[in-house]
Order: sequence, then structure tokens, then C-alpha cells
Amino acid sequence: MLPLSVSELNKVISDLEIQDITTATIRQIVALAKALEKKSGESFIHLEIGNPGLMAENVGIEAECKALQSGVANTYPDISGIPEIKEAGSKFIKAFLDLDIPPKCIIPTVGSMQASYTLMTLLKQRIPGKDSMLIFDPGFPAQKHQAKMLGMNCVEFDIYDYRGPKLKTKLDELLQDGNVTGMIYSNPNNPSWSNFTEEELRYIGEAATKYDVIVLEDLAYMGMDFRTDYSLPFKPPYIPSVGKYTDNYILLISASKIFSYAGQRIAVAAMSPEVFYRRYPVLDKFYEMPNFGECYIYGVLYTASSGVTHSAQCAMAAMMDEAANGNLKFIDHTKEYGKRASKMKNAFLSNGFHIVYEKDGDHDISDGFFFTVGYKNFSGELLQKELLRYGVSSISLKSTNSTKDGVRVCVSLMTKEDHFKDLEARLKSFNDDHK
Amino acid sequence: MLPLSVSELNKVISDLEIQDITTATIRQIVALAKALEKKSGESFIHLEIGNPGLMAENVGIEAECKALQSGVANTYPDISGIPEIKEAGSKFIKAFLDLDIPPKCIIPTVGSMQASYTLMTLLKQRIPGKDSMLIFDPGFPAQKHQAKMLGMNCVEFDIYDYRGPKLKTKLDELLQDGNVTGMIYSNPNNPSWSNFTEEELRYIGEAATKYDVIVLEDLAYMGMDFRTDYSLPFKPPYIPSVGKYTDNYILLISASKIFSYAGQRIAVAAMSPEVFYRRYPVLDKFYEMPNFGECYIYGVLYTASSGVTHSAQCAMAAMMDEAANGNLKFIDHTKEYGKRASKMKNAFLSNGFHIVYEKDGDHDISDGFFFTVGYKNFSGELLQKELLRYGVSSISLKSTNSTKDGVRVCVSLMTKEDHFKDLEARLKSFNDDHK
Repeated sequence: MLPLSVSELNKVISDLEIQDITTATIRQIVALAKALEKKSGESFIHLEIGNPGLMAENVGIEAECKALQSGVANTYPDISGIPEIKEAGSKFIKAFLDLDIPPKCIIPTVGSMQASYTLMTLLKQRIPGKDSMLIFDPGFPAQKHQAKMLGMNCVEFDIYDYRGPKLKTKLDELLQDGNVTGMIYSNPNNPSWSNFTEEELRYIGEAATKYDVIVLEDLAYMGMDFRTDYSLPFKPPYIPSVGKYTDNYILLISASKIFSYAGQRIAVAAMSPEVFYRRYPVLDKFYEMPNFGECYIYGVLYTASSGVTHSAQCAMAAMMDEAANGNLKFIDHTKEYGKRASKMKNAFLSNGFHIVYEKDGDHDISDGFFFTVGYKNFSGELLQKELLRYGVSSISLKSTNSTKDGVRVCVSLMTKEDHFKDLEARLKSFNDDHK
Repeated sequence: MLPLSVSELNKVISDLEIQDITTATIRQIVALAKALEKKSGESFIHLEIGNPGLMAENVGIEAECKALQSGVANTYPDISGIPEIKEAGSKFIKAFLDLDIPPKCIIPTVGSMQASYTLMTLLKQRIPGKDSMLIFDPGFPAQKHQAKMLGMNCVEFDIYDYRGPKLKTKLDELLQDGNVTGMIYSNPNNPSWSNFTEEELRYIGEAATKYDVIVLEDLAYMGMDFRTDYSLPFKPPYIPSVGKYTDNYILLISASKIFSYAGQRIAVAAMSPEVFYRRYPVLDKFYEMPNFGECYIYGVLYTASSGVTHSAQCAMAAMMDEAANGNLKFIDHTKEYGKRASKMKNAFLSNGFHIVYEKDGDHDISDGFFFTVGYKNFSGELLQKELLRYGVSSISLKSTNSTKDGVRVCVSLMTKEDHFKDLEARLKSFNDDHK
């Protein structure tokens, strides 16, 4: 029976030894929702996890099976990447971002998670004294944990308080000490789904050059700002990137969401040639390799996992190549998330909720994989808990280092018409009881 | 034309900017051999790299393709491992090592390389003050590099000088300060192919317990001591392991060599339950997870790569399961390496060479994936260079942290009858010229 009582909810939370629901891991929240499903006898609406809600791209599966049948499984792939993935990555980036990155600078990783962890390792080492990461909040909590694992300091700020020209001033303030070696953000943003404007990307790029900071631009949701149609390869408009405004950048392009290929743990790190070929005395000495790129490949990635699953590289190569050829319309495929978001936003907005991260410049944010909602002056914790009582599971914005009150909604698992009906009914019931 | 002159050889070494051939990476040595092939117009005998020289096990390929077709590619696999790999790992270890490790303590990793790197991360943290690794020399140089990357101190010694009862005394001497948190070795050993005797494994296990050191036992070449037939599952004799003598152990079992599956980057770390469930205040605080095993899975492995390629886990699960069922005779398959080694040793020994690491206790070492050779009183550098002049590429023992003079021979790429004929002819010519 829904809603559950406050005491029923609290008992399950306490049974699971969850100390603070707002900082619990997603895995813990999933376990909590499952336990509450059992308690209430009703299925929950799962808005908490970001598993792809589409089938994996068939181009990848076919390429992978073909590669396995042809005998790649017994051969260590080159740590720097098989030639096919390097070529395809270069072509894909030119096709959709209009950036020139040679194949040599395209390096496969075990998901973007390995890319950010291993790149931060090297960013921490490259210049003595430059040991901090600038982390744009809200964001993906794992990246902050990675910096912590590496003993790096984190400099943070909530982007929503510094949009437009304020961003330039804020970056100057945060970077002027010179101790920041790298910055990381995802664009579109997880969880807020805000997208930097071209003006903001220019501020970021200019600051990266001015203060010698290397930008890790996480393109996990590349092309999913559906307000603009970026779906035609080698034709404008191109997907915005900081790479237009600085040479100090590394792109992280994961197959997980754009190709619904999360299970195979495959991504590429694409370095600007200026980053790849730059020499650092301290890296030269430690790794005995001539430049940043080779230190990364043969020093760090070799150490981390001796490279990336051979067949998954073949899949990623095929998917990027076919996307650049216009045969794999990955942006059109992911538009499904935008449609789901639009319907779900209506359900929230018509029941007293508001969008927390609401605007990019003058425009409403795009409909995509995530959005954020608040309710009246509810704290994130109260909202997350009250929604759970009504059978809706989400994560609090606090867990994404946001300073705002609210929860993150992920649209990916809303795969059936019934899910939308249930969501509407529960939000209505929630709103009726809290008016 | 072979042999190349000394000056021809030195010119190519200098062209490739190789400063010291004895400490160059294997990748550099491969590049050198390729350049010398071009120079001489003759194919070289490649004894330097350890790529599997057999086809990947078909059981794995079939399981992987089936999993991909059934749709696993879009789903993040559980970081702790899919149920199948956890069950199969537990069964496989019982079948061939006669150790009891529950499925919960079997954790997939992106090759044993990721396992050792991420485990060392946690070993360094677990008890303040215990921050050193004991590394058995000679060994796999990457593991020492991993410790260096993590800022750990390394304590090292050459096993050949401390066989039998001397090992017990040596371990007491090295561990009594209490600053060693973990030790790592591979058994059979890379490069020497020596195998610890049961007596020696007992000394290691007892020392691990006495000094609270956790053993990382790298079973990369598990079962390939062909002097004893370990090929029947659930039947003695079982493959020797330190797990019989201490609870402080973690096994690293990689598919790369035992199943010729190196390309897919899949292994399991198998923790004794005592290691998995142990609690450490410092880890509890840092990761907010209750025990070593969960800190490892949800703290470290999640950070490192968000888990392991889904289809590769399915392959590893199927291969371990079928091996334990007696249907995949992986030890019989790898016996091919022993046959190659036997022929190659004859060729070396009948041309004036000797085996450097020669005995385990009273017995000659086994024929397997590697062996080590010396020639007269030649230094490792001189021997490696002189062999290159005659078209034989190897790596020096110095690059494996050995204190002995000689080179490592890997048998894996000796796949054709002609390779053996060429090797014999070149070694004869070498010996004739150096007598």
C-alpha cells in the first residue's frame, strides 16, 4: 500500500544501515527502493539509476561478435588502441565536434571512469605544486571520489550561481593561485542537464589557456542537447566543445550512453595534439617517456589494466565509424530520452514541482537524460524521502555536490506507458497530500 | 644478412633512442627487433614477448557472442561481478587448488594488472605505517612499477639466493620491521619458471600470518608446472598455493595465459574470506564501507573502471565452469608450451648455453612458458646484444630485477617447425663464433 508511513520508511532505512540518505550511494538507494517495494507490495518508479534505457547499438554487437570469431581474444591489443578505433575516433570527432584530433591522440579506455581516474593521476604529477582539480558542481560524484583517492585537493563551485559573464570572474578567482592542474565537467551536465553556452565555453577555454589548466570535457551525453539538431555528420551546427577555445583539452567520449553500450566498458580519451606532445621534465624522469601522451599510454594505462578489451575496441570503432558515415543515427536514437523527459516534466510541473536547474542563458534547459526537481521549500532530504513514501525513487541533489534543494530524475528506465501513468498518479497523490 | 655487425646493431639501437637495452620496455625491444629485421632482411626469432601462442578457448568465445546477442551490452554489470563468474570462480578454485573461497569473495578485474594495481592501492591504506610491498625477484616488472606509481616502498630479494630453509630466515629478516603490508609473486615464476616447493609456500604463508602481510599470489600460469599432472578437477594432486598455509591471501587468476584469452582483459581476484571480511578503521572512514572486500569493490574498483566488460565476464565464467566440469582441458592445452620449451632448451644447451634459474629444491625446473639462459660469463647486456646480431630477440634478466646474468626466453611465439630449425642454426652459428 502506498503511501508508506514515515515510520515504515524510516524503519527500512535503518534496517539497511543507511546513515544519511542524501549521501548514500546509488547502489544503496536502489537497495532501499527494492526493500520498500517488498514492504509496500507495489512496484516503484525508478528514477535513481542511469542505466541506458535503450538497446545497445547493433553495429557494435555485430562488430564485436565478428572480431571474436576472427580470433582477437588471444591477442593483447596495442595499449594505445587498435588502429581502427584510433582512426574512427578521429573521424567521429571531426564529424560531430568539428575538431581536428589525429588518430595517434585517440586512446581507448575502460569507460570514461578509467579515463578520468588515470588522467587525473598524470595531471597531479605533471607540474610540481599544481595538484588540485577544479570540479564543476553539480556533477558526477565518482569524479570527486577519484580526486580524493589520488590525494588531490578539490576546488568546487556550483555552476548555477555563476552563469554567463559571472563565470569568467569566478574562474579567475578560483584559478589565480596557480595550484589547479585540471578541471572536469560533463556537458550536458549530470544531474542538471544544463549545457554551457558558447560564451561560457569560451570563458572556460580562455581560463584554461591563461592558467595552464587542462580541461577534461566529459561528453558522456554528447549530442543530447536536443534543442539543436546535431545529428548530421560533417555538417553544422556542431556540438559545442571547449576544444574550440583552448588547446588545453582532453575529451572523454564514452559508448555507455550515446551508443547504449555501458556493459562493455569502452570509451576513448581524445587529447588535443598540444596536450599529447607536451613534454614535462618530471614525467620524463618518472616514466622515461618523451611526452604526456606516451606517459599516459605506456606509463599509466599500461599500469592500470594493460589496455582495453579487444572486441569492445572493435565495437567502439565500428560504431563511431558508422556514425560518422551517417549510417548509425545515434543522436536520433537517444532523442527517445528527450521525449520521455518532456512527458515527465509535465507530470512534475502540473503537480506543484519546479525545475531546479532551469535555464541555460535565456533558454529553458533541454529535455534529455536527467532533470532536477524541487517542491515548495522542501529540503532535498525531505523531498527524496517523501517521494519514496509515494513509490518514486530518486537521488538527492546533495549527493551530486549541488548546493540546491531538490532531487535528480533520470528518465532512462521509463520504458513503458504504464510507468508514465503510475508516475502521474503518484505525483498527483503526493501533491494532494502536501498542498 | 646475419650476423649483423656490432656497429650495425649499435646504430639501430641509437636510432631508436634506446638508452639502455637491459632496462628498455618489451615494446621497445619488439620495435628494435623489427628494425633489425628490416636491416638484415631476415625474420627474427621472437623470444621476447609473452603473447599467448595458442588460440583463445572456444568455450569463452561462444559464451561471449551468446551474451552479446542476448543483450548484455547495454547493462552495467554488477561491480562485484555477475553471479555466474562468482559461482564459477569459487568452483574452479575448489576444483584445481582445493581452496574454499565463497562466490562473494570472487571479484572480476580488467586483467590481473588491474587487480594488482587496485589491491596495492588498498594494501597501502589499510594500516597506517604499513606501506611497503615485498616483491620477489625476478618478477614481472610492471608490478614494481605499480608500487612505484602508488608511492609505495619496495622491499626486494632474488629468490634464487634463498631457496629452501634460507627463505624462512630471509622472510623473517625482511618482515620483522612490520612496515610491509603485502607481498607479490607469480608461481610459476615469470621469468625463471621456478616453482615454490610446498616447504617454501609454507614459509611464505607462515610469515604472512606472523607479520600480518597479505599475499598476492599471481597464478598467471596456473597449472603449468607440467612435472606434475594437475589436470583432473576435484582430484589430487592439487596445484600448490600459499592458501594452504595462511588466511592472508588473495589469488590473481587471469584468463590471459591459462585460457589464451589475453585480448579480452579478464581475470578474477579471489580473496580468502578472512581478508574480505576484515574491518579496518581507516578504510571504514575513507570509503564508508564495512570491510576490506566491499571497500575494494565499491570504493576502489568502482573508481578504477566501474567494473569489467560484461561479455568478458560471461566468457570467464563459462571457461572456469567448463574447466571445473572437466570439459575444458586447459592444462592439457597449455602443455604445448612445455613441449616447445623442451625442444628449445635442447637447442640452447647443446650450443654452450646454460639454464640460469635451474632448480626447484632438488629437481630441475619445469618446461613451460619461460626459461632463462646464460652463456659463459657473458653479462646480460652482452648476451642480449650478441643474440640480436644472430637474429634472436630476448629480454635481459636485469629488466626483471634479477641479479643474475642472462636472458629470458619466452616459448609462446615458436609456432612453426621452421622457427625451431632457424633457432638451432642461429645458436650453432653463435656458439661457433664465440667458442
